[in-house]
Amino acid sequence: MDIEDLILISVDDHVIEPPDMFDGRLPQRYQDRAPHIVKGPDGGDLWAFEDIVTPNVGLNAVAGCPPDEYGLDPTQYAQMRPGCYDVRERVRDMSAGGVLGGLNFPTFPQFCGQLFMRAKDSDLALACVRAYNDWHIESWAGAYPDRFIALSLPVLWDPQLAADEVRRVAAKGCHAVTFSENPAKLGLPSFHTPHWDPFFQACAEAGVVVCMHIGSSSSMLTTSVEAPPEVMISLTPVNSMLAVTDLVFSGIFTRIPTLQMALSEGGTGWMPYILERADYVYQHHRAWTFTDLGGRLPSQVFHDHIWSCFIDDPVGVKLRDDVGIDKMMWEMDYPHSDSTWPHGPEALWKTLGGVPDDEINKITHRNAMRAFSWDPFATRSADRATVAALRAEATDVDISVKSMGRRKAEASGSLTATLAAAVSQGRER
Amino acid sequence: MDIEDLILISVDDHVIEPPDMFDGRLPQRYQDRAPHIVKGPDGGDLWAFEDIVTPNVGLNAVAGCPPDEYGLDPTQYAQMRPGCYDVRERVRDMSAGGVLGGLNFPTFPQFCGQLFMRAKDSDLALACVRAYNDWHIESWAGAYPDRFIALSLPVLWDPQLAADEVRRVAAKGCHAVTFSENPAKLGLPSFHTPHWDPFFQACAEAGVVVCMHIGSSSSMLTTSVEAPPEVMISLTPVNSMLAVTDLVFSGIFTRIPTLQMALSEGGTGWMPYILERADYVYQHHRAWTFTDLGGRLPSQVFHDHIWSCFIDDPVGVKLRDDVGIDKMMWEMDYPHSDSTWPHGPEALWKTLGGVPDDEINKITHRNAMRAFSWDPFATRSADRATVAALRAEATDVDISVKSMGRRKAEASGSLTATLAAAVSQGRER
Repeated sequence: MDIEDLILISVDDHVIEPPDMFDGRLPQRYQDRAPHIVKGPDGGDLWAFEDIVTPNVGLNAVAGCPPDEYGLDPTQYAQMRPGCYDVRERVRDMSAGGVLGGLNFPTFPQFCGQLFMRAKDSDLALACVRAYNDWHIESWAGAYPDRFIALSLPVLWDPQLAADEVRRVAAKGCHAVTFSENPAKLGLPSFHTPHWDPFFQACAEAGVVVCMHIGSSSSMLTTSVEAPPEVMISLTPVNSMLAVTDLVFSGIFTRIPTLQMALSEGGTGWMPYILERADYVYQHHRAWTFTDLGGRLPSQVFHDHIWSCFIDDPVGVKLRDDVGIDKMMWEMDYPHSDSTWPHGPEALWKTLGGVPDDEINKITHRNAMRAFSWDPFATRSADRATVAALRAEATDVDISVKSMGRRKAEASGSLTATLAAAVSQGRER
Repeated sequence: MDIEDLILISVDDHVIEPPDMFDGRLPQRYQDRAPHIVKGPDGGDLWAFEDIVTPNVGLNAVAGCPPDEYGLDPTQYAQMRPGCYDVRERVRDMSAGGVLGGLNFPTFPQFCGQLFMRAKDSDLALACVRAYNDWHIESWAGAYPDRFIALSLPVLWDPQLAADEVRRVAAKGCHAVTFSENPAKLGLPSFHTPHWDPFFQACAEAGVVVCMHIGSSSSMLTTSVEAPPEVMISLTPVNSMLAVTDLVFSGIFTRIPTLQMALSEGGTGWMPYILERADYVYQHHRAWTFTDLGGRLPSQVFHDHIWSCFIDDPVGVKLRDDVGIDKMMWEMDYPHSDSTWPHGPEALWKTLGGVPDDEINKITHRNAMRAFSWDPFATRSADRATVAALRAEATDVDISVKSMGRRKAEASGSLTATLAAAVSQGRER
């Protein structure tokens, strides 16, 4: 197998929602209260919903943008690559990047729909979640069924409504739902209560994977406000470490034995250590804590229930037997700043030396197809799905990096504080 | 090489300070204000200093104790193995455990002397820090110079006094000082200021390694108060991940190019991933953040300056080339609950399959001797320092686990909150 032969499914990309996404999708009584775009004082395109105004932060839409134009300013659609928000252009960018399939997380509702949880009118919010999911399933993913794994938003504020909604979208073929890596940080019950059981039970029954993206607790770790932004950005996988540890020591998987979860953008190279540590602690401490995992070690709970995801992670690939080769999945993270686009295949290939072909295929696409019950080969033959074939379809796509007309970055001591504020905007209810 | 031939130096054990440690060690005017033992309402032996009363938490002195007597109650000396607080018995326990040398962190002053930082009378506190260090260097480590690497407390509230003290103890042969993994969490300036430069400069010049133990920020991570204690205990190495990330992105090592630090009880198996992540983030983001590490990648800064430490870490040993074989050191953690005593050699040996002898010797003792400028072989020949030789000297030591007469553990929903409160007691100034 050569790099040209890879078949790549990215289980973590992001859609910047287009301004017209709610048009005609809400009940008539709510249509004029739909989230909509307003202009900010410095020209940024902002989403307005009830009394909440939320920007498209520049750093979240930098595909094709020169790094010295990265930053935290609110951004206009006109300053983004159209592939961020236009599905036709997105697919062309995916092809130019050699990537067959993508699973796209939301942007303006935050990673798991925190925005709608904060609404004053929960009926309106429920209508918006449904409209968002219909748009995502029909107009975004549905426009190219051979290119997208559909992902739905949950109804965060009501586990029974969340169960209803996940069943509704599963009936439309959507087998992924985004959720919080730590609902306790959102002011909701933690994983150590049975509060979420109706929702997780519905996910398990409908074959829906619960995808927990880093940052979906509206929290990021850093060390001090004086630390440079690299400290906070480097530590994002720690959110997934906390989530894994939290989940394997909860009773969720004992109560719901077929539930499957994915740690989106969590990275993988740390997992063998964290699992080794959890097993060690469980064995050393359970006699006085009375924690009981029902006969399994924490690492076994992990391997039975949790899928791992990485962008560029040579250590994780090296440790793939300990991470779990049957649940590792690749990510491109388009159009975020950690993305490898348009050189995803090249970045991944560098880490695949010595990996057998069948294991490469698991990491690049077979595991994702199995996790999300998604078969792109139903409508597109495998030989038309390779890096080489897709890039041949998109030779006219300009992938060069060029100015987007954004403000040039300037040295500032307050970047970390600004970044933390942007992340935490989904916290208060 | 066989398990019997290992020569083991543990760079992380703990002393439970004996009640008489300050006798005759303070200036006359302060002697009656020295920290001293008082009886708690339920019989626990507590340390009293100014208006602060701090317990010996049971979990911190469990060597030889059955796991169902582990817990968070204040403990009496009579309920501990004498090796916790009696240096003669400690050395016998070390021998019975096959261990040549130990570096012992403080207990009642907290991991880096937070207690004395909280004092109202800073002259008294300075006298206490000096008295503590003299006691540790002369009466504890000094009682068996071939068995202990001496460790001093810093003067946390004044970097110039801290520099003076580290020079004073270095002149007595003490080449390790304990410090906070994140001083910002203690209300002190962060690593991203030049505040600590006089102290770190003195450490570098005097060949003193700055040892940052997990928990020395008086902070532990958990996910929610409802999570079982295993979540918090499993996540302790995350403190070291935060510290590493913080340090490599600070300018400290550019300003003080010979400074050496150690991540005590941090574990090692996560390091290759965290370093890979830091390098990735630095390369992706520095154009807009203007962070400048002076020509080195974060991973290079790490390998040049930071020593790693582990208790039982098969993944770390497997990844030793990426962790850095020349700076990996072993730990026993006597008498804490994560300790492998008295079976440290057996636990370590299980992870050493396929490791060449010279690399085993680096991990077990050569690196520690080099880091701390400590040569036990000056007074004890290497053939008298092996697991077999030491155990042969201590055949009369009873290492069986037996009741210490403590209260049996009971299931409780508040263990995590109690644990968090115990950890955070050193925070408020």
